[in-house]
Amino acid sequence: MHRFDAATALERRDGRFAATLDAGFNVGRSPNGGYVAALGVAAIGKVLAQPDPFSVTTHYLRRLESGPVEVEVDVVREGRSLSAAEARLYQGGAEGARMLAVFGDLSGLDGPTAVRGAPPDLPPPDELVASADVPGLPEIVYRLDLRIHPAHLAGLVGQPSGGGEVAAWMRFADGREPDVASLPLFADAGPPAALNLTQAGWVPTIELTVHVRARPAPGWLRAAFRTRYLVGGYLEEDGELWDSRGDLVALSRQLARVHRPRES
Amino acid sequence: MHRFDAATALERRDGRFAATLDAGFNVGRSPNGGYVAALGVAAIGKVLAQPDPFSVTTHYLRRLESGPVEVEVDVVREGRSLSAAEARLYQGGAEGARMLAVFGDLSGLDGPTAVRGAPPDLPPPDELVASADVPGLPEIVYRLDLRIHPAHLAGLVGQPSGGGEVAAWMRFADGREPDVASLPLFADAGPPAALNLTQAGWVPTIELTVHVRARPAPGWLRAAFRTRYLVGGYLEEDGELWDSRGDLVALSRQLARVHRPRES
Repeated sequence: MHRFDAATALERRDGRFAATLDAGFNVGRSPNGGYVAALGVAAIGKVLAQPDPFSVTTHYLRRLESGPVEVEVDVVREGRSLSAAEARLYQGGAEGARMLAVFGDLSGLDGPTAVRGAPPDLPPPDELVASADVPGLPEIVYRLDLRIHPAHLAGLVGQPSGGGEVAAWMRFADGREPDVASLPLFADAGPPAALNLTQAGWVPTIELTVHVRARPAPGWLRAAFRTRYLVGGYLEEDGELWDSRGDLVALSRQLARVHRPRES
Repeated sequence: MHRFDAATALERRDGRFAATLDAGFNVGRSPNGGYVAALGVAAIGKVLAQPDPFSVTTHYLRRLESGPVEVEVDVVREGRSLSAAEARLYQGGAEGARMLAVFGDLSGLDGPTAVRGAPPDLPPPDELVASADVPGLPEIVYRLDLRIHPAHLAGLVGQPSGGGEVAAWMRFADGREPDVASLPLFADAGPPAALNLTQAGWVPTIELTVHVRARPAPGWLRAAFRTRYLVGGYLEEDGELWDSRGDLVALSRQLARVHRPRES
């Protein structure tokens, strides 16, 4: 079993789902927000008839820690093509995250298609530094294989480029292929694009919305994250995920807040 | 009293809020999605201590009609700087919309600011056609004064420009000034940008998220809406709202679905 699947495994218990947040997906002392969203998506997926999360919004309410959690899912509306549900994630009796999602079926969509964007331009992955070879990064980085565009590395060492962008190749480090269940994780797995706008110690997510638009093909994902509006310390981060066929597979947007770096 | 304020007025009744959806904000036979979101924001604003909706996600569950509705609000988390709440809007005993929101206080934000975008380039409003002078448009258009960029009008008459954009000046027709309470309405009040990608009969919103980033100054808003990814009939529409000082006041993103035009 791949680590992400173990980390999002759920057991039904008294009308809730029990799970364990894996410290291997931490950023500092807390689980990555995209990982928390993926766990909620897994729980909602057990309840709704439709297989694919079309839109998932997660509000982060309290600091979570690795260890046991419970997820409660309520069906909001069951429909023929789309169904909606809510998930509430509890730890130590307190609600740590709440999610609202609509699921559908991405196979057999027969409406019109018009694409006005393209995957980010990146050098081949084997010409780029693999995150696993860099010591001292957040735990989650070692579960993944990230290859960040060289022009976007400056902010990660405290020298913001000013462009507010981070583009990267992404895949699981253990060979697990990407799927719709893991896209919420990838949508929040890059370093904050805001590090290329301003010096920051910590950029916690307040709310994250992911739209899954297609089932990804096996292989590398290409991700492009961009922050254009940092205002009074609050910012949006917009993400695009593209699969190895060159198809857009997800869009994300999060509201986050910059905390200044600690004085040393 | 201005029409928008009457249309979002709430009366406490048995632990819920009673309101009346005003047909003046309809698109066809249903209330505009941004108007429904604004009504939910008004209800949540009565319950939380913080004044400003930082992020509001609305899921549209069933077709609503003008007339009486009830809104139930639950506090999800009360915090010092941010508080979260959920609202459920009922009509005829069925839930028609569910919202998840986080409120804060936009006054006195003291974090860093870096802006990497600009308001859309528009000819002066008095050189553009006022929506109120065009007959046969959806009802909501006459509650507003919309002045659409001439280059973006083609899709509205069935000739998509291909660019997927609609930029416009916007204000209330009755002189009411914009504020944070009305930004969710403006964020969904333009014609669908997808009309400049494909011919469509109807583009219903499935989910709408609005981030309010600043309190708007009095005067015209400038709005820019853009759809880049129409895939199998599903699309995102990204919106930016700018105030008369040239400050970004809100970002929006919605997931919507194109229905083909009726054969004539």
